[in-house]
Amino acid sequence: MADLVTPRTLSGFRDYLPSVMLAREEVLRRAREVYRSYGFTPIDTPACESLDVLLGKGGDESDKLVYRVLSARGDKAEMGLRFDLTVPFARFSAQYINELGTPFKRYAMGPVWRGERPGQGRYREFWQCDFDTIGTTSNAADAETALVINDLFTAIGFDKFEIRINNRMVLNGFLEAFGCSEQSVVILRALDKLPKIGEAAVLQEMVAQGVLEGLGTLVLKIAATSGTNDAILKMLDESLDASGLELQALKNEQISAGKLLLEAGTKRLRELLAIAKTAGVPDGRIKIDLSICRGLDYYTGTIYETFLTDLPGIGSVCSGGRYDNLASKYTKQVLPGVGASLGVDRLIAAMEELKHPLITKQSTPASVLVVNFDPARLGDYQRVARLLRAAGVNVEVYPDAKKVGQQLGYAEKRGFAFAVIAGPAEFEAGVWKVKDLAKREEKAVPESELVATVKPAA
Amino acid sequence: MADLVTPRTLSGFRDYLPSVMLAREEVLRRAREVYRSYGFTPIDTPACESLDVLLGKGGDESDKLVYRVLSARGDKAEMGLRFDLTVPFARFSAQYINELGTPFKRYAMGPVWRGERPGQGRYREFWQCDFDTIGTTSNAADAETALVINDLFTAIGFDKFEIRINNRMVLNGFLEAFGCSEQSVVILRALDKLPKIGEAAVLQEMVAQGVLEGLGTLVLKIAATSGTNDAILKMLDESLDASGLELQALKNEQISAGKLLLEAGTKRLRELLAIAKTAGVPDGRIKIDLSICRGLDYYTGTIYETFLTDLPGIGSVCSGGRYDNLASKYTKQVLPGVGASLGVDRLIAAMEELKHPLITKQSTPASVLVVNFDPARLGDYQRVARLLRAAGVNVEVYPDAKKVGQQLGYAEKRGFAFAVIAGPAEFEAGVWKVKDLAKREEKAVPESELVATVKPAA
Repeated sequence: MADLVTPRTLSGFRDYLPSVMLAREEVLRRAREVYRSYGFTPIDTPACESLDVLLGKGGDESDKLVYRVLSARGDKAEMGLRFDLTVPFARFSAQYINELGTPFKRYAMGPVWRGERPGQGRYREFWQCDFDTIGTTSNAADAETALVINDLFTAIGFDKFEIRINNRMVLNGFLEAFGCSEQSVVILRALDKLPKIGEAAVLQEMVAQGVLEGLGTLVLKIAATSGTNDAILKMLDESLDASGLELQALKNEQISAGKLLLEAGTKRLRELLAIAKTAGVPDGRIKIDLSICRGLDYYTGTIYETFLTDLPGIGSVCSGGRYDNLASKYTKQVLPGVGASLGVDRLIAAMEELKHPLITKQSTPASVLVVNFDPARLGDYQRVARLLRAAGVNVEVYPDAKKVGQQLGYAEKRGFAFAVIAGPAEFEAGVWKVKDLAKREEKAVPESELVATVKPAA
Repeated sequence: MADLVTPRTLSGFRDYLPSVMLAREEVLRRAREVYRSYGFTPIDTPACESLDVLLGKGGDESDKLVYRVLSARGDKAEMGLRFDLTVPFARFSAQYINELGTPFKRYAMGPVWRGERPGQGRYREFWQCDFDTIGTTSNAADAETALVINDLFTAIGFDKFEIRINNRMVLNGFLEAFGCSEQSVVILRALDKLPKIGEAAVLQEMVAQGVLEGLGTLVLKIAATSGTNDAILKMLDESLDASGLELQALKNEQISAGKLLLEAGTKRLRELLAIAKTAGVPDGRIKIDLSICRGLDYYTGTIYETFLTDLPGIGSVCSGGRYDNLASKYTKQVLPGVGASLGVDRLIAAMEELKHPLITKQSTPASVLVVNFDPARLGDYQRVARLLRAAGVNVEVYPDAKKVGQQLGYAEKRGFAFAVIAGPAEFEAGVWKVKDLAKREEKAVPESELVATVKPAA
């Protein structure tokens, strides 16, 4: 016999065993339903893209994470594995938007790959689940994005979660008025790390990048604004007129440009909240948080993060924002849009920790096991199984005529609710024995009552 | 502005646009439901596997098709993209079978990659959708595999299809009796090409590989056996005793070994058909075809292929078989099993050609468009949209307050069934205008009747 190859996954990669996979399929199914209920349509793009499509122009951070794929002959590395679903969507949009028309709403679900150092809950292959509306600057789409997130987590079975929103125009309005809009990228990238590294380290990073310490302190003060949504909006309405802020503005036109930006951002936040309220999103579900800004440079408007109230430390489980132009790398056509991405793997890790009802020990999607008592009766076992299946009950027929006790042990280990048994006596009497595995009760029922007997657990 | 990168997919790769993707999602959803209804449980494995897990020992054909993936640093090619779902499942089984227990029934859906020359309907990335039962040699699992295929195609909406079955023990029984069992691999590989290249070329290939021409002719004669299932079974019962066959047997023990094999294969075919009949599979759905054998070496028992009656030329759309040992490369534990794989992309290509009802011009999963007549009413538009969503109706709210005609044009192009419109007059009167886009009829209904008005099309 040849040497055995040790069966294993590569570092940073993992398998989904049945019970976790059943939960993942259910999460994706519910996400799909919610996305579709808003008219988002599914698309799919290949895992492999041309490297020039995938890579940035100047050694971006993300470029280092891209896995290169050799041609099958092994002589060329001209393609790579996608590291998110946004870049392929940008390429896709540029390619088909004239055919598809705008607005265009799509969702996409699938694995992405990043050559990062694996760690607790961080994998090199993981699932994303994005939805985006492109081809419109309307705030209707921004408001809808928050509604989708609300309905998504509700559909997955959460009631304790908070959607935190911000608008980059607010922070950028301040920075413009302060005369330092050119430092916006550096400042927002540093601010995005706030929950991970804390205020002192954020300030240190800003200063190290050339931001004046007073300015950094001011940004952190704005980010730390707390209070009700109304109180924060009121503060934003008044902030630039208020004397309390130490404006370092150099020119008046910068102040007024900044003010316009700030006003526009504040208006959109206020409108989003009003639409959500009228549409029936529970009070307190959406919360303005001026500290959230996402690290990605392309966001320009509304920002979203989603936190589970019982497990905030795991971070945002659904994040996104508005961008001015999705596909400028591939087309001159301007494609503004807004969207968010559900972090499927992080969410499932959270669900495991929170003992969410979708995470069970059950490792089968079936609720009924038909015991193989007499292999000569396999046709009848499958006949009755198909009868139950037609009624929406998932049924497994045990393949081997092992001892009944062994088959029942298998059923209990997998998490079946019922075992159905028929041997010569039952066939003679025209009944099926139904064993409730949790209650450890058994009764004989005629075939006509079988569906009604086992259906409640299906 | 930097030079634009041309948006495109690589040769052999493709995008799924909304209308095809809607069909693919529906096919996968129905497949998932059928697999689950038999107790198959979902698992998932990474796209990337270690090369030693993926590659055969001796330059197999499939090895040449494997895409190598470089580590993100670009210095090592130690992993590759899976080329099917069977090898990862073999590795998975070896790794977890003691934890999972047997029998173990799983399904898996996902893309696989092969560095082949792309052609009509042949892609370098395509989807597979497998189900397998491992850890049992029972013919119950073989019969069930045929039932699953039957229910799968029925669920997808086909009624004109045929499941062709064979058993390698039948052909191998003949070859054993003929004293040439060691040529089985060569003979079956050639025979598998019969529908593509025809009898003469198959015979030529056999002879080129050292098979005696008389033997090749005899194999082709057996493969060409036609008639009812009963007639073929009867022929198999009698064949080795009949004088009609020109046995080239060298030794009596080979004849009796071959006969045992042939009898065992015939018995399993007969039993499979009997179980399927009792279980309610329509007559004529499953057909013995002694010419089908699959090209893969690891099959040892029942063989399945599935043909669409109206489009047989596209080839088998669901194929599989029984194997003696799935994971011998990774474990000493013997894992026999049986399964099949739905060729998702080929099936969808066939559905497009056959104008299957799941293939529509609709490019949205929503049936109702709420027209954005007055952007100040977006909260109400979303409120009523959520009301419809809660009743299971998928609803899109148009984001921009464009001219109503433009919004209706969008709705018609995408394939919405209804447009719902409310402006000041409707809000005043407490009604919603519902426009049936196909019938070009319009009526005003109170909000309480909105669900009932649009629900039938959902």
